[in-house]
Amino acid sequence: MSDKTPVTVIGLGLMGRVLAQAFLDAGHPTTVWNRTPEKAADLVARGAKQAATVAEAVEAGPLTIICVLTHDSVEDVLAAAGGSIAGRTIVNLTNGTPEQARKAEALAAGSEYLDGGIMAVPQMIAKPGALILYSGHPDAFERYRETFEVLAEARYLGDDAGRAALYDLAMLSAMYGMYGGFAHALAMVRAEGVSATEFEPYVSGWLQAMFQTLPAAAAQVDSGDFVTDVSSLAMNDTAFPNFIEASRALGLRPDVLLPMRDLIRRAVEAGHGADSVIRIVDMIPENS
Amino acid sequence: MSDKTPVTVIGLGLMGRVLAQAFLDAGHPTTVWNRTPEKAADLVARGAKQAATVAEAVEAGPLTIICVLTHDSVEDVLAAAGGSIAGRTIVNLTNGTPEQARKAEALAAGSEYLDGGIMAVPQMIAKPGALILYSGHPDAFERYRETFEVLAEARYLGDDAGRAALYDLAMLSAMYGMYGGFAHALAMVRAEGVSATEFEPYVSGWLQAMFQTLPAAAAQVDSGDFVTDVSSLAMNDTAFPNFIEASRALGLRPDVLLPMRDLIRRAVEAGHGADSVIRIVDMIPENS
Ligand SMILES: NC(=O)c1ccc[n+]([C@@H]2O[C@H](COP(=O)([O-])OP(=O)(O)OC[C@H]3O[C@@H](n4cnc5c(N)ncnc54)[C@H](OP(=O)(O)O)[C@@H]3O)[C@@H](O)[C@H]2O)c1
Ligand SMILES: NC(=O)c1ccc[n+]([C@@H]2O[C@H](COP(=O)([O-])OP(=O)(O)OC[C@H]3O[C@@H](n4cnc5c(N)ncnc54)[C@H](OP(=O)(O)O)[C@@H]3O)[C@@H](O)[C@H]2O)c1
Repeated sequence: MSDKTPVTVIGLGLMGRVLAQAFLDAGHPTTVWNRTPEKAADLVARGAKQAATVAEAVEAGPLTIICVLTHDSVEDVLAAAGGSIAGRTIVNLTNGTPEQARKAEALAAGSEYLDGGIMAVPQMIAKPGALILYSGHPDAFERYRETFEVLAEARYLGDDAGRAALYDLAMLSAMYGMYGGFAHALAMVRAEGVSATEFEPYVSGWLQAMFQTLPAAAAQVDSGDFVTDVSSLAMNDTAFPNFIEASRALGLRPDVLLPMRDLIRRAVEAGHGADSVIRIVDMIPENS
Repeated sequence: MSDKTPVTVIGLGLMGRVLAQAFLDAGHPTTVWNRTPEKAADLVARGAKQAATVAEAVEAGPLTIICVLTHDSVEDVLAAAGGSIAGRTIVNLTNGTPEQARKAEALAAGSEYLDGGIMAVPQMIAKPGALILYSGHPDAFERYRETFEVLAEARYLGDDAGRAALYDLAMLSAMYGMYGGFAHALAMVRAEGVSATEFEPYVSGWLQAMFQTLPAAAAQVDSGDFVTDVSSLAMNDTAFPNFIEASRALGLRPDVLLPMRDLIRRAVEAGHGADSVIRIVDMIPENS
């Protein structure tokens, strides 16, 4: 018998199945449940126990990880779990908002609840570079920290169950921004017959260079000192029509670029033309 | 006397002045001109010659670099240069569209014209990591390649004068996407009292990880094979309302996120729900 903590994984989609597999690989007795039971077959073949109900799955051990599609699915799972969660640790790694995390914590009353954000794609799980953020019950985190480290670096962000979701959504917002910009860049060069793979090293190299400006930008946001000798909002405001115009001339929708144009424009109109671009952070609140 | 190629720099804004300084530092006889002449004083003190007119500046040597605000300013400069450009090399490093580059090439007829895109902020000029893209007259590029390398790595993209501008605008589009996403992420965590500098390493680490997915994404765009075991458009479409909702709950305008939501939504509606997210590239052309 393994002396490793028994773990239950609920939800065997692209992500959940990789979490279960990582626990199996690390020698943890692993119980699984999935709404569509057939999807458990390969994991069972590799040593997982399949539970017939959510409650049975939770009761198989002290620690249950939920990784389903949305908060609504989490509510379904917690409803099906019923009293089985009492005294156990429930870790919800489903993507959601801070409010949803706090709501799930309330629904899971009686358990020690942790909410988490998986900062990795499935292929990164159990490999260097993967990070999972946790917040909520501090004792639960300490008790199972080593078990969590099987999946990814485990970082605890405090006892507000919503904090991990906040970081998660913010980090993903940044990623969507980058990804949308990258997609637009590929569309632009393809419109003139340049292949995506030919162009990719240019854009990746440039993003990598721009990346290095982010710590200083963050420091400006905190200090409120937006003096720049790099590039001013006014200059960016002036250059921006080029992007829209060139995209249109290439037969492309410029939509991805418009919110950034508007933020820069509003910052200039607010009198910040000489400031650095990161001052746009101040234009995002609704009351700005 | 220096045996280095004499260079003229027109435009001494944040960028132009750094270009002129780099040539001075490398021992090139350097002539400068700026619309507001006072701005040349520090460069003159460090050895630059100041010309009284654009034509006089161009006539000081075989190679003139223009780095002014917009294409309109380039037209002003070329008009002022008049016949002085004949037989000389004109390199326009002002940000513009591919069409503007081709138009400037036509206006500069009689010269050997190169258009370029500076992929660097001023602080990176003459340092490792800086890149300047060139396209246009091939002989001019070969002749002055070594001089260009004083400023940054010099990459030649072919004889279409618009090609460097295309790459430049595409690369900057990607950067604006990343920057907008980063700004939104900072706004989110700040709304719950987390400082930008505390959060920055999280978002930078995550962007760094996501970076590594870009080459494979570019390969998918070229091959048209969008099969994924990472994360599907359908899953992203489902998760997206969380970002909007959480941003609104934090009192933030979700604007930066909306174009990406719409691209993902349209890709799902077009029947691509099982495909990888980079399929959104196909949704950017106006006729998609
Ligand atoms: N994939 C990634 O790259 C990634 C990265 C970080 C975080 N995440 C997050 O991880 C979570 C799962 O993502 P995924 O990629 O695994 O998604 P997925 O492949 O679409 O799988 C969704 C899972 O949720 C289950 N489910 C849906 N509705 C349910 C309900 N009402 N009751 C019970 N189970 C339900 C599905 O069961 P059936 O099999 O019965 O449909 C399936 O197991 C999401 O919140 C996602 O945002 C994913
Ligand atoms: N700064 C960066 O990070 C960066 C990076 C890459 C590329 N660039 C590009 O480099 C170019 C210059 O940027 P910058 O940051 O140096 O801008 P800047 O600091 O605003 O300087 C603008 C320059 O253009 C001159 N100018 C404007 N209108 C003119 C006209 N009609 N005729 C002649 N000169 C005129 C200005 O002269 P006055 O002094 O008389 O106003 C000044 O020298 C832009 O195209 C920009 O997109 C900048």
